[in-house]
Amino acid sequence: MYNLLRGKRGIIFGALDENSIAWKTAERVREEGGIFVLTNSPAAMRLGSISELSILTGAQIIAADATSVEDLENLVDRSVEILGGKIDFVLHSIGMSVNVRKGNHYTNENYEYTEKGWNVSALSFHKLLQVLYKKEAMNEWGSIVALSYMASQRVFPDYNDMADNKAYLESVARSFGYFFGKDKKVRVNTISQSPTPTKAGQGVKGFDEFIEFAEKMSPLGNASALDCANYTVAMFSDLTKKVTLQNLYNDGGFSNVGVSQEVLENFKK
Amino acid sequence: MYNLLRGKRGIIFGALDENSIAWKTAERVREEGGIFVLTNSPAAMRLGSISELSILTGAQIIAADATSVEDLENLVDRSVEILGGKIDFVLHSIGMSVNVRKGNHYTNENYEYTEKGWNVSALSFHKLLQVLYKKEAMNEWGSIVALSYMASQRVFPDYNDMADNKAYLESVARSFGYFFGKDKKVRVNTISQSPTPTKAGQGVKGFDEFIEFAEKMSPLGNASALDCANYTVAMFSDLTKKVTLQNLYNDGGFSNVGVSQEVLENFKK
Amino acid sequence: MYNLLRGKRGIIFGALDENSIAWKTAERVREEGGIFVLTNSPAAMRLGSISELSILTGAQIIAADATSVEDLENLVDRSVEILGGKIDFVLHSIGMSVNVRKGNHYTNENYEYTEKGWNVSALSFHKLLQVLYKKEAMNEWGSIVALSYMASQRVFPDYNDMADNKAYLESVARSFGYFFGKDKKVRVNTISQSPTPTKAGQGVKGFDEFIEFAEKMSPLGNASALDCANYTVAMFSDLTKKVTLQNLYNDGGFSNVGVSQEVLENFKK
Amino acid sequence: MYNLLRGKRGIIFGALDENSIAWKTAERVREEGGIFVLTNSPAAMRLGSISELSILTGAQIIAADATSVEDLENLVDRSVEILGGKIDFVLHSIGMSVNVRKGNHYTNENYEYTEKGWNVSALSFHKLLQVLYKKEAMNEWGSIVALSYMASQRVFPDYNDMADNKAYLESVARSFGYFFGKDKKVRVNTISQSPTPTKAGQGVKGFDEFIEFAEKMSPLGNASALDCANYTVAMFSDLTKKVTLQNLYNDGGFSNVGVSQEVLENFKK
Repeated sequence: MYNLLRGKRGIIFGALDENSIAWKTAERVREEGGIFVLTNSPAAMRLGSISELSILTGAQIIAADATSVEDLENLVDRSVEILGGKIDFVLHSIGMSVNVRKGNHYTNENYEYTEKGWNVSALSFHKLLQVLYKKEAMNEWGSIVALSYMASQRVFPDYNDMADNKAYLESVARSFGYFFGKDKKVRVNTISQSPTPTKAGQGVKGFDEFIEFAEKMSPLGNASALDCANYTVAMFSDLTKKVTLQNLYNDGGFSNVGVSQEVLENFKK
Repeated sequence: MYNLLRGKRGIIFGALDENSIAWKTAERVREEGGIFVLTNSPAAMRLGSISELSILTGAQIIAADATSVEDLENLVDRSVEILGGKIDFVLHSIGMSVNVRKGNHYTNENYEYTEKGWNVSALSFHKLLQVLYKKEAMNEWGSIVALSYMASQRVFPDYNDMADNKAYLESVARSFGYFFGKDKKVRVNTISQSPTPTKAGQGVKGFDEFIEFAEKMSPLGNASALDCANYTVAMFSDLTKKVTLQNLYNDGGFSNVGVSQEVLENFKK
Repeated sequence: MYNLLRGKRGIIFGALDENSIAWKTAERVREEGGIFVLTNSPAAMRLGSISELSILTGAQIIAADATSVEDLENLVDRSVEILGGKIDFVLHSIGMSVNVRKGNHYTNENYEYTEKGWNVSALSFHKLLQVLYKKEAMNEWGSIVALSYMASQRVFPDYNDMADNKAYLESVARSFGYFFGKDKKVRVNTISQSPTPTKAGQGVKGFDEFIEFAEKMSPLGNASALDCANYTVAMFSDLTKKVTLQNLYNDGGFSNVGVSQEVLENFKK
Repeated sequence: MYNLLRGKRGIIFGALDENSIAWKTAERVREEGGIFVLTNSPAAMRLGSISELSILTGAQIIAADATSVEDLENLVDRSVEILGGKIDFVLHSIGMSVNVRKGNHYTNENYEYTEKGWNVSALSFHKLLQVLYKKEAMNEWGSIVALSYMASQRVFPDYNDMADNKAYLESVARSFGYFFGKDKKVRVNTISQSPTPTKAGQGVKGFDEFIEFAEKMSPLGNASALDCANYTVAMFSDLTKKVTLQNLYNDGGFSNVGVSQEVLENFKK
């Protein structure tokens, strides 16, 4: 469309199927001239259709368990090799709560599950950043984005322990972003997206009611996966070089609305 | 560069001289294919060199006192006429404190000056939005940006009553952004920019120390006027269609840093 | 009850009738051993029943238009005289929007009304602080509280220009609180209270629906006027000496809830 | 002093020595008429002098490893038994980073250490809340406070992975606070305290410079351990019944100051 990412190289985590935000981002990045490697965990790769995306975008796939430092090291090394140079952009779009999957209520967590979900959803971001940092794999003015959700800041009762994981993730973006900025001139941000009917989103209990509530609360309606892909492209581009350590809401305004007229209508007698 | 704003029409307030953020924005918008009208108050026009910018960008100038609803109505009507259609983007970059100019400390305000500064710096944004809204002058998915500064959220002692004006301005962006979003599908945001050595910035007492402090606190250093222009272009473009009611920090990370190592060095014995 | 305010002297603005937060605060402060002067505008005094409160609490009443520096000077001078010493606590509970009263929608403001509402609701707090500061009328470790509402931070569509006024008020608390802290060791905070069925609250359009919505969103339910009075007592007491420049939510948790299960129930098909 | 906590029963975690915030809190709670059980990990008990505090306050000590659900269950059961009724207040003051202890930089974490620190500092709070919730051990209108630090929200480079742990902790306070509020009428908050020269605080690299910086940034100076104890008493008392899900800054105003005049002095040429 605009050639915003011409000449830029990247890694995109978490494209499962065509509803994934990471999938839409890969498509949009490709349209903007960026090249990249796709990655996902072996398990997620079996579930989804990432090979189709690989064909669509001409991107190679490297499987990696994001909780394994060794896998991440291999991923980064091979990506630099395949792409022919250091990395300019990275999308971290990974999240999973075993407590949610198993139907454990937030007040009845199984702490082995909690640890597993935290490791996959939150600590994986630190591991990824640490591998990129130590290997000096990022170009100056590169841009790293992780996807978050507002449950990190306010309570959404069904979001369970993913809320706490996202709070940790956002903190890692700030804490590591400081050193990545000072030492390597790389920016690190999170995008806090509207509820989105992806595979992961739909796993959350009461998702349908919630997405309708959010739609009615948001002055511009919910942001779609494509909207998120576009915003991510802007964050990867050279237009946002000094934006870092931020949690950026892409949500049609939801985050700054206390109540909307449509929602209040429901409370009229 | 990218043709991000091809076919879009706008109004840019507040370009005084080549150091102005609005000046840089006008240049960048032009490069991206946008067309626009330039405006400033008659007094500011005499002080600065806006006619030079008019020649550089091929934009017409319409003088308008932003505290005058009548002037704003005329500005909007003529802009639509000149540009040949409804408006897609607006930059509000207006701020002035009479108390600062007259050297009144924040604890010794002259309230006539306070009212004047509030009217120019904060209420002008509501007036502008109300005129655009009533005249139905904005296209759907248009984007309105006002420049703010972090003193709206945290204390910078020399920023004086401009802090309170910026807090009001940011609130107007949210409050009016709600209705502009719901009713017209237009987004309204503020960009909270690093201290920038513009004419207005340099008027603030202790500006040199402060800009150096901010530089040392910010992992990526202070954002320049050009950085802000680029971010504004991203906010005007179709890449950020669902971002609204936000206060967006363009500050090299300053806003999320509690202290930096460089600043702490100054406190070593 | 606890003698938390024994020996402390203060000024309480804004007690209109027995539903007022200021009224409940006056009663609770008296119970805790504090003595004070009551004040309100002459107009508000005619509307309400402040003389009854005066009898109940043994407090003298001094009329003052909070937009008049002269009135505020007289109020402070006489309060110090009557109470026999400098001031330890002040409650600012003043707010009024002429646009709301006249039924002007937020997108159709009359700017004379806007200026009037801003002067009464927001600038009055700066005037009060400036008078107290210049007259050195506060004791060290004194505490000043202004009442605010969350519309300053997020949109509540019917709150109209009071939202922007409260944003300005909260900014004044920070900006002036800085100097009051550094120079006089006085703390300045705002309490952001649940919607409360006071005379002022009930003037807001759609108040009944809104208070029910807030009740269902808040894990502990809405905070009452008495709850607010209790919190204010805590903020006036010596238990909170280092809390300053804060906006403190007294709202049953509303401010940090994205959605509650009860509210989602309304969106089930 | 005021009998604010007469008749209330509680559990206080984390009193190591007389500099501990938990130690001061125990003393102040006792003065206010509250009774409680003291607890700490067996390791911390050997390091510190908690038995002295036990004598001073007449409180029994029950050792508990806060990462062990079994230990927490035993602690809660025995506390209810010893104190003769359900619990009204709990202080969680626990934090430890193995990476900090071992001198690992934030960009060079050992992830086994990270997991251990997260378990002790952050997940322990969820475990504690879950045990209290399941056992229905809290009285209605009880109050639970955990100590946090602003590194959860903004970067303090030497705070290391404790920043991310505190972000997780604050999220748990919100997430669990929601259910504890709705289901049991119990409030859950965090207090975000000034840097404090406790044993834990002093372990942070560059602590002396940092505490001086914070002192100069804070309009009222840093809050001491005693100040924090007083604020905690206020949060345990019936004066703050509707305050929940909040992160409350007790920091002399630091959190809302962008820069102070004293700090800027250091940047004058």
